[in-house]
Amino acid sequence: MAAELTALQLIEKHRPTLDQALEAIRSRAYWSPFPEHPKAYGEGGAPGSLGPAEGQAAFDALRGTRFELDQPGTDGWTGDEVSPYGVELGVEYPHPDTGALLPAMREAMPAWRQAGPETRALVCLEILSRINGRTHEFAHAVMHTSGQAFMMAFQAGGPHAQDRGLEAVAYAYVEQTRTPETAEWSKPQGKRDPLTLRKAFTPVPRGIALLIGCNTFPTWNGYPGLFASLATGNPVLVKPHPRAVLPLALTVRVAREALRDAGFDPNLVCLAAERPDEGLAKTLAVRPEIRVIDYTGSSAFGDWLEANARQAQVFTEKAGVNTVVIDSTDDYRGMLGNLAFSLSLYSGQMCTTPQNLLIPRDGITTDAGPKSYDEVVTDLAAAVEGLLGDDARATAVLGALVNPQVKERLEAAAGLGEVALASREVTHGDFPGATVRTPVIVKLDGAKPDAEAAYMSECFGPVAFAVAVDSTADAVELLRRTVREKGAMTVGAYTTSADAERLIEDACLEECAQLSLNLTGGVYVNQTAAFSDFHGSGGNPAANAALCDGAFVANRFRMVEVRRPA
Amino acid sequence: MAAELTALQLIEKHRPTLDQALEAIRSRAYWSPFPEHPKAYGEGGAPGSLGPAEGQAAFDALRGTRFELDQPGTDGWTGDEVSPYGVELGVEYPHPDTGALLPAMREAMPAWRQAGPETRALVCLEILSRINGRTHEFAHAVMHTSGQAFMMAFQAGGPHAQDRGLEAVAYAYVEQTRTPETAEWSKPQGKRDPLTLRKAFTPVPRGIALLIGCNTFPTWNGYPGLFASLATGNPVLVKPHPRAVLPLALTVRVAREALRDAGFDPNLVCLAAERPDEGLAKTLAVRPEIRVIDYTGSSAFGDWLEANARQAQVFTEKAGVNTVVIDSTDDYRGMLGNLAFSLSLYSGQMCTTPQNLLIPRDGITTDAGPKSYDEVVTDLAAAVEGLLGDDARATAVLGALVNPQVKERLEAAAGLGEVALASREVTHGDFPGATVRTPVIVKLDGAKPDAEAAYMSECFGPVAFAVAVDSTADAVELLRRTVREKGAMTVGAYTTSADAERLIEDACLEECAQLSLNLTGGVYVNQTAAFSDFHGSGGNPAANAALCDGAFVANRFRMVEVRRPA
Repeated sequence: MAAELTALQLIEKHRPTLDQALEAIRSRAYWSPFPEHPKAYGEGGAPGSLGPAEGQAAFDALRGTRFELDQPGTDGWTGDEVSPYGVELGVEYPHPDTGALLPAMREAMPAWRQAGPETRALVCLEILSRINGRTHEFAHAVMHTSGQAFMMAFQAGGPHAQDRGLEAVAYAYVEQTRTPETAEWSKPQGKRDPLTLRKAFTPVPRGIALLIGCNTFPTWNGYPGLFASLATGNPVLVKPHPRAVLPLALTVRVAREALRDAGFDPNLVCLAAERPDEGLAKTLAVRPEIRVIDYTGSSAFGDWLEANARQAQVFTEKAGVNTVVIDSTDDYRGMLGNLAFSLSLYSGQMCTTPQNLLIPRDGITTDAGPKSYDEVVTDLAAAVEGLLGDDARATAVLGALVNPQVKERLEAAAGLGEVALASREVTHGDFPGATVRTPVIVKLDGAKPDAEAAYMSECFGPVAFAVAVDSTADAVELLRRTVREKGAMTVGAYTTSADAERLIEDACLEECAQLSLNLTGGVYVNQTAAFSDFHGSGGNPAANAALCDGAFVANRFRMVEVRRPA
Repeated sequence: MAAELTALQLIEKHRPTLDQALEAIRSRAYWSPFPEHPKAYGEGGAPGSLGPAEGQAAFDALRGTRFELDQPGTDGWTGDEVSPYGVELGVEYPHPDTGALLPAMREAMPAWRQAGPETRALVCLEILSRINGRTHEFAHAVMHTSGQAFMMAFQAGGPHAQDRGLEAVAYAYVEQTRTPETAEWSKPQGKRDPLTLRKAFTPVPRGIALLIGCNTFPTWNGYPGLFASLATGNPVLVKPHPRAVLPLALTVRVAREALRDAGFDPNLVCLAAERPDEGLAKTLAVRPEIRVIDYTGSSAFGDWLEANARQAQVFTEKAGVNTVVIDSTDDYRGMLGNLAFSLSLYSGQMCTTPQNLLIPRDGITTDAGPKSYDEVVTDLAAAVEGLLGDDARATAVLGALVNPQVKERLEAAAGLGEVALASREVTHGDFPGATVRTPVIVKLDGAKPDAEAAYMSECFGPVAFAVAVDSTADAVELLRRTVREKGAMTVGAYTTSADAERLIEDACLEECAQLSLNLTGGVYVNQTAAFSDFHGSGGNPAANAALCDGAFVANRFRMVEVRRPA
């Protein structure tokens, strides 16, 4: 079969983008090739891209159908996704017969290895470019599986996820090409002839990679591992969260089409949708063919994978407890507004959402005068109420609760302490079946042992604890302990004191947590930008890897050397 | 305390060497800053270096003494090394009270982290440079613990080990500096002001690193991990093999002196010598303070570390079964001579020594006409006999057997099949107490199930199996199975056939093993050169890491980002 996309065409089309990505991960300045405004797609936008109506239509056409994939080893059909907005999706996906699927994936490896790092990177860019063109369709798929509001599903599930995939491709390319393809080696031997060897170096894949997707950010958390593995030569088996299959099934379909068009075996990317309660990830994770695993989800299963999938390189993002230390500020209103948005965005269902706000019980200094602990909490509650007062605006910020467990947790949280801001039920104008809730803010006394059980556990969802502490130094000690014992994807802090800043920074450097200081404008502690920000540190219990760095890609392949006399 | 070596002095002295190392790992051409000829040291050689007599005197002065180290937490003295040459060393080392030692090492971390990647690299180069100046002393220490012959102990234990340490420093430096120290990030917001952030990126260490040394190559196998960890900010606790303490104790002493002179806490490098049968490595390996482990030794303990030291990044080099496929050659004499030396060097006690020579039972084609299986084996036996016929030359190649287990294994090997070359006892002219033996070559039939138990196990020592196989294709299948099931540090092959070469190369690429083709001159399959050759692949059961690549350093530190509004 002649490839529809030749290597030369791939270079012309994508090499400039790859080069820009390589420069971006070095400079870590702002950069993205994927526009984040919905109007940038469709008529008048990116050529060939789906516009809003086309994206909606494409998504609607998927509902109530069998999602056909031409992958081998299909053993019946499965799928029972229901949108957090109350819409039934009714899509069925092929259930894999892994006895047929895994060997077919392994067969695809040699030609993909031989293609080399550049072609692999460019094919990955072709996949990402095609996904980008269908961002409007993906946005609906992400929205109706994760519960994200449309704009967030569009941006985080679309261009931002694509950015993270491209970032992984760039890192993989750098890592594989830091060793030259060949070298001439000549060692002087005094008066005798030198010893000479010709050496060839080939990056070789480890084996089949398994991507275990999550419910809340199927594409954003999935693409780094998927593309890092694929770009380093490994076929990727995509096992989505059973409640968020569609965005990754679409991804697999697009990847297979692009691979085929570039002359490669589409079985380099396959889907493994599971039957209800099948526990397919657990079975697959310990298969000898699986040599790389990327996982986002609960700490319990992440820890299990790290302990049991010993034949594989395991990259995990798990639970953590994110802290904001509030010492002082020269922009009290800005701080409150920024925090209110951070707590509300996607109903606090981000792995990066702050949970514990540590506030000295004697209060803080601000540009608006000293504020007592109670005042800070009351003012923050008011800021959240103000942000979410209008139902339409509230739903656009909050999205919907992703699953019933979040709702249960939210309801239980009100019993953990004094409620400073009660959660409010919001009716969604377009989707009356959506479960939409505003955050609860609960006051806890950091000195009381019975409060510790609450603030030292992850309470995933729209729940924030305003923890009264003795002092900023006390807050920093609690921050350290929380990161060390529970892990953290993010740390935030507000301070105008150089001493306090130093204390907080040292704690983050020593406990290995990513710190955002004094955010009062349009950047939030929850958000990280590909090519510039690291997502997670890989050095505390919340995650054993960061997105994205050398360590995220370096061990997905190995370098094999063949040497001969020159 | 003012540093005797300022940062500026370190830059002047070592930055050019670091830059050359950085270039060498990119080009992988031949390079070394450390001369390998004994005459390059002492009078007329490298300034300040010890000459042969001084090195010998320094070594002699150590015998029968307490090896004082000013490290905290000493709990008695231990040591009972006996040279494989029959010389009693009688050196005693401080036994650690880890309850005092580990906290002292942790205290040294913040200042070392703050020093940054360049200063850390340059201090590591200062340590290596001081070690290099004492190469003659180290040579005796390596010789009288490993049993290597003097010249090998000098080169492999001296400059080649120092090269591998420097290589690790270079990789660590690249990895930590691929992210800039700071970045300005500015994201356009249409007509509104851009979002702007100032970001700072700091490589932070993981914690205390544990180096578990081996008996045969205490410095060569120890330096990569030691310097990779130290250069990435981690204090290193050195736990030598109880029979090979002295070379690493000297290393620790030199490192501590250099660290102190550069103004750093010497407790960044400490020694943990163990009492007989104490099993100190096992206790230390699971301590929560230990976050990185480097290990060379048996598969049993390496596998145990990988499974149990879950709080640490674990880098292992374990046992393997190295194969040479003999298909055909256009330099029969060269092949025999090369193989004879490979089998004899250091009595086959290298992790890279070939064990299984796979030879088609119908014979091979050569420039000297067709040779039957029996002829090849007989001619190889004659080549080994020729090489080792003279006792003085034999001891210079063979060294001594490192421990009684090797002798037992060698003696048992003669019972495994038909002996093509019997092992011979050699009397050492200088050290009558040395146990010196020539290799045994045993014929085995690859088709016989009872032979498989022999050739499919590592028989560490001067034992080679000449395995008769049905064909070259059969040999390649056995090669694949051996690498997959038992691991391999090296693969060798001789062939003049492009088809056979392709088969063998594909097997090595797919099973992830380093291949040397048609070596007939002065380069041997056992030997790898730092900055150019990878030692091990990290992709088969013989080792989970390679010396040295990005993966060897990337996860020894993490990158912490602090971002603020610009």
